[in-house]
Amino acid sequence: MTDADWIRRAIDLARQGAGLASPGALAGAVIVNNGRVAGEGFYTYDGVHHAEILALHEAGPAARGSTVYTSLEPCAHTGRTPPCAQALIDAGVARVVSAIQDPNPLVDGRGLTMLKQAGIDVQCGILQDEARRANEAFITYITRKRPFGVLKLAMTFDGKIATRLGESQWITSEESRRAGHHLRHEVDAVVTGSGTFLKDKPQMTDRTGRPRRRELLRVVLDRRGRVGRPPGWLVFRGSLEELAAELYGREIQSILLECGPDLAFNAIRSGVVDKIVAFVAPKLLGGRETPAIGGPGAERLSEAVRLSDWTAATAGPDLVITAYVHGHH
Amino acid sequence: MTDADWIRRAIDLARQGAGLASPGALAGAVIVNNGRVAGEGFYTYDGVHHAEILALHEAGPAARGSTVYTSLEPCAHTGRTPPCAQALIDAGVARVVSAIQDPNPLVDGRGLTMLKQAGIDVQCGILQDEARRANEAFITYITRKRPFGVLKLAMTFDGKIATRLGESQWITSEESRRAGHHLRHEVDAVVTGSGTFLKDKPQMTDRTGRPRRRELLRVVLDRRGRVGRPPGWLVFRGSLEELAAELYGREIQSILLECGPDLAFNAIRSGVVDKIVAFVAPKLLGGRETPAIGGPGAERLSEAVRLSDWTAATAGPDLVITAYVHGHH
Repeated sequence: MTDADWIRRAIDLARQGAGLASPGALAGAVIVNNGRVAGEGFYTYDGVHHAEILALHEAGPAARGSTVYTSLEPCAHTGRTPPCAQALIDAGVARVVSAIQDPNPLVDGRGLTMLKQAGIDVQCGILQDEARRANEAFITYITRKRPFGVLKLAMTFDGKIATRLGESQWITSEESRRAGHHLRHEVDAVVTGSGTFLKDKPQMTDRTGRPRRRELLRVVLDRRGRVGRPPGWLVFRGSLEELAAELYGREIQSILLECGPDLAFNAIRSGVVDKIVAFVAPKLLGGRETPAIGGPGAERLSEAVRLSDWTAATAGPDLVITAYVHGHH
Repeated sequence: MTDADWIRRAIDLARQGAGLASPGALAGAVIVNNGRVAGEGFYTYDGVHHAEILALHEAGPAARGSTVYTSLEPCAHTGRTPPCAQALIDAGVARVVSAIQDPNPLVDGRGLTMLKQAGIDVQCGILQDEARRANEAFITYITRKRPFGVLKLAMTFDGKIATRLGESQWITSEESRRAGHHLRHEVDAVVTGSGTFLKDKPQMTDRTGRPRRRELLRVVLDRRGRVGRPPGWLVFRGSLEELAAELYGREIQSILLECGPDLAFNAIRSGVVDKIVAFVAPKLLGGRETPAIGGPGAERLSEAVRLSDWTAATAGPDLVITAYVHGHH
């Protein structure tokens, strides 16, 4: 096992906190002594203790002289718990390897500095892209002071979300729909528009069966007051930017937009979308009425929204294309 | 080197005939004696000789006792040349391994039978999917008696081919456009519609610089008689089905459609498209006016055109998605 292998393990552990850590960061730690795992841990908000502390508890005296691998820099400040860096020093660990520094301005390198000053061998920057991806929601939330926005699309190969008569159930495969529930599991809120709400009467619940700390907040944007007061939904009458500010105030770290073409266009244009996850079915529908991204459309190619870092995977027969809105990440 | 490795080499050789073999099949042959290449060849129409004969010439006396790997079954009939199977028998080869049987009804297993009856060890069916793909145009042309149809799309991630003001140059990257020329190199004709012809004044030439036997036939579909008699273009006034029949009569093995949304929809619906190659740029444009696939659009999901066997690759920053129209292959 190389350092990178152990860091990958720490990131995998961190991901086990999905749905349980927000508004905190996902974080995982592995303590290795003589090539063997002495302790492991990952952060959950309700568990209070940070990943390193849980791993130290598990390791006990085996922490002395060990190497500690963390997906995120150990903290140096007292929040709900005392600083992890101090706990690692007190336990007598020999070496700390972190994937990335903590983007939280309260930490931001101070944890690593504290460890170094105590004579511990410190390294940072292994698998940093992967670690940053795993914590993309937290990083956006903490540094931009708004929720990380994911736009989910379920469309045909030619970018349509329904037939011209409006039939849309189901464009994509069962596997894609299941993956869609996992997207919901990873966010704190789902957002839709009044059009989709009235037409599809969507439940938009997290049906993964996996535990989550806070119930998924369901929001319907309804500037024209068309939906009434549906129970279990937050009806919001302002703009998307106002909604982002409101949700940030409620400690909503991330949102998933599942909406029609015009709201999708609007959301991208207004900067609340950081990432797009498109489930693309191997089908063609043709026509003009039902694009995944609608709105007025760009007039010039120079106005096109640029995407970056895209990757393609599969879900059953469908392609799953993930892309980031350029300039956001 | 395993049998599959040598067959792959034979298929790679076959592909070197792209642009030079139509209306014949692409075919490659490798003669291996004591683990070493004794001779190689691939078919070109103007070279007259089949791949096996070229390889036998190169091998000379080393063909005796050798194994011959071919991307396509050796022929058993006298066409422009005597049967290859007989030449292999006469040369005293010990073993023949072919990827696929020849779909040509004049051959269709008879070459292999002839070899077996002469006491040669015969095997067929190694890397058959790959070999069939390499000859998909020939197979469609010979078995369906119409040209193999490829639809090229150059679109944004949301399936748009232009802004709402019609700006379309360039949606995709230079790398994609270069790959587009290679698509032209592999076909006998390009087909566009009068709308695209009048708006973009496209050259639609093969600018790969690679040799081709027949000049690329450029066709504009012009049912309404709008384009006049542009030099160097075939103006066709009939339907797509009539065009396919006309081009088959001219021994056009394959066509590349580069056209606007309505002709694209029509072409898919009328069954002249076998494969779609989409260059997808990491951009979003939004809007409704400029879909890659237009036309009236399907009313019901059950009417959606289904795609199969899709694969994703990259060309510079763009994704290149290749898919087959379901039921055609």
